[in-house]
Amino acid sequence: MNTLLLVAHGSRRQQSNDEVIVLAEKLAQQCSGQYEIIHAAFLELAEPSIPQGIKKCVDDGAKTVTVLPYFLNSGRHVVEDIPGIVVEAKKHHPDVGIKVALHLGASDLMMDLLISTANTAV
Amino acid sequence: MNTLLLVAHGSRRQQSNDEVIVLAEKLAQQCSGQYEIIHAAFLELAEPSIPQGIKKCVDDGAKTVTVLPYFLNSGRHVVEDIPGIVVEAKKHHPDVGIKVALHLGASDLMMDLLISTANTAV
Repeated sequence: MNTLLLVAHGSRRQQSNDEVIVLAEKLAQQCSGQYEIIHAAFLELAEPSIPQGIKKCVDDGAKTVTVLPYFLNSGRHVVEDIPGIVVEAKKHHPDVGIKVALHLGASDLMMDLLISTANTAV
Repeated sequence: MNTLLLVAHGSRRQQSNDEVIVLAEKLAQQCSGQYEIIHAAFLELAEPSIPQGIKKCVDDGAKTVTVLPYFLNSGRHVVEDIPGIVVEAKKHHPDVGIKVALHLGASDLMMDLLISTANTAV
């Protein structure tokens, strides 16, 4: 079973965290063929944490967990913190393939997203 | 003249700030028909600040400035900080139309971006 873990920074503002959870649910509906289960997790300030999120995937029967950083830039969180947490998680789940995707800002589609969003300005 | 100001959080890691500046340059190439000038600015930790960025647009001859928050969630920065700074900037530039776009996570295109980025996982 392939699973996806959408990892956001986490906010003190619960509405912001809820947006990520709703996004993970929408994503689950749209790509159920590729990922049977999708959970959200947070680097800090909110739960589930990344280790908790990976454990949820594993408990659900994951053979692979794709960690998708919901981050725009390759800052310290993306370059050091998330990979470091994943290295630790691999030790706890040696039979599960845990991979990390690029941050969103690296995508070619970002340009279209920016132009489309700029048109919402009021 | 219509201008766009891509506003990121700003990072202590200069490479992360440089990514935003490069993105603004790419965006300028791709949508020169809609925005004659595009600058980048940062909420904190890096320069130019948002007021400095708006002033650059105005000095370049802007009649409108579209502020595009390069943020994923509607956290405090998006809901309070950026709008508050824009309200102040409007007082300094009363003849310029300064508008604020939604944050990126509100876009319908985000789903495609997420799925595409997940496929980069290694």
